[in-house]
Amino acid sequence: MKGLDISDIGHVKSCFKERFGIPRRPGLVPLARGMIIMNPEYANPDAFKELERFSHIWVIFRFHRNKENETEWTPTVRPPRLGGNRRVGVFASRSPFRPNYIGMSAVKLDGIRHENGSTVIDISGIDLLDGTPVLDIKPYIEDSDIVDSCNRGWIDSIEPKSEIEVSFSNSFEKKYESHSEKYPDLRELVEQIIKQDPRPSFHKNSPEPDGGHDYAFLLYDLDVHWNIRNSRATVTDIRSI
Amino acid sequence: MKGLDISDIGHVKSCFKERFGIPRRPGLVPLARGMIIMNPEYANPDAFKELERFSHIWVIFRFHRNKENETEWTPTVRPPRLGGNRRVGVFASRSPFRPNYIGMSAVKLDGIRHENGSTVIDISGIDLLDGTPVLDIKPYIEDSDIVDSCNRGWIDSIEPKSEIEVSFSNSFEKKYESHSEKYPDLRELVEQIIKQDPRPSFHKNSPEPDGGHDYAFLLYDLDVHWNIRNSRATVTDIRSI
Repeated sequence: MKGLDISDIGHVKSCFKERFGIPRRPGLVPLARGMIIMNPEYANPDAFKELERFSHIWVIFRFHRNKENETEWTPTVRPPRLGGNRRVGVFASRSPFRPNYIGMSAVKLDGIRHENGSTVIDISGIDLLDGTPVLDIKPYIEDSDIVDSCNRGWIDSIEPKSEIEVSFSNSFEKKYESHSEKYPDLRELVEQIIKQDPRPSFHKNSPEPDGGHDYAFLLYDLDVHWNIRNSRATVTDIRSI
Repeated sequence: MKGLDISDIGHVKSCFKERFGIPRRPGLVPLARGMIIMNPEYANPDAFKELERFSHIWVIFRFHRNKENETEWTPTVRPPRLGGNRRVGVFASRSPFRPNYIGMSAVKLDGIRHENGSTVIDISGIDLLDGTPVLDIKPYIEDSDIVDSCNRGWIDSIEPKSEIEVSFSNSFEKKYESHSEKYPDLRELVEQIIKQDPRPSFHKNSPEPDGGHDYAFLLYDLDVHWNIRNSRATVTDIRSI
């Protein structure tokens, strides 16, 4: 049954250039922006007629990094929401390491541009890695997609959300101005990303070293460095890569 | 780019044996039941651990009938909700005739059975055709999947829902008892299906012939005949096929 007649219709250009720092679900970081670049054969403006009228769309995509890295799926996974310790079935999770590596994400639709034979869809509130291959785009339709009577499954047992306080160091501030022209919401974006606490579970759940933990993530063409200690984060540096 | 490493993980056994009569979206016909039969290599009980705790799941599937019938997708489609006249872009619709023929449907999870090495997932409120190939199963998670702030796109212009009154003829009643043992909710199921008015748009929007229109649909192993006239439907016959 391998080799179904399924192909990519486009790919995502995302502010997130690596896995670390990507929100765990869509909507968490409203300023997280990206675009879908349609492949030429799907760049027909007719195919998007009246899509602009919707506020949100589904992006059906492939978790491509898994395959590149040859990470095989396993029957059970350890969701970060459960502290990374408890195992649930892969089909009871939204883990990327799953059969067929198909993901779906409801994101905000900011606009559609048709330019020089190409079609670009601006989206935000994304949780998508740069380069993500897209299989389908559908309008988010309340009648079909909102299940009012759903329960929360094992999500009920979620730990209370940690409150991270984010501040910016002087050395960050000095460099910030040169980048803020290109990325006007950069400071707020960095704050939104760190506030959702992207630390790996094993760091959150074990005693902190003196001085806390240092992290960095790639955002656009920038390398953002930060430190966290007692739930207080400081953004220490920002560098062009 | 053809021939991605994507394969079916199972298929749907559905009460709906043909397209006509299938609800236009999940949840419309709560008694519409089906099951997902997992392929042997995905029948591992571990892979479903804690899935039962969710009330609803996403079924990611292929619209297989299109490919079999070689119906090519087109850039624009005419959604039934718009009376079948106005065209919108295929990516602005949930039409089955779309690139990659991938569908998604949020259905009620009724149970999971592991028997003799097979895994069967009971679902209801389905809008899925019998034999539908399944690509993925995911829990429906409120935090990820409910977008409170979504608008209704072109769905705003939906026509008011027609109210169909459903009654049952004597000849139906006579035969009903012999089938109701096998299908206890059969009468209510038939009523729910007809109430959502499965008539083609061009029948709804043009003058009715004397005597109304006659229709039939296959439900399980039954052929259900009915007539509609002035928004009053009568179920006239039910036959084993």
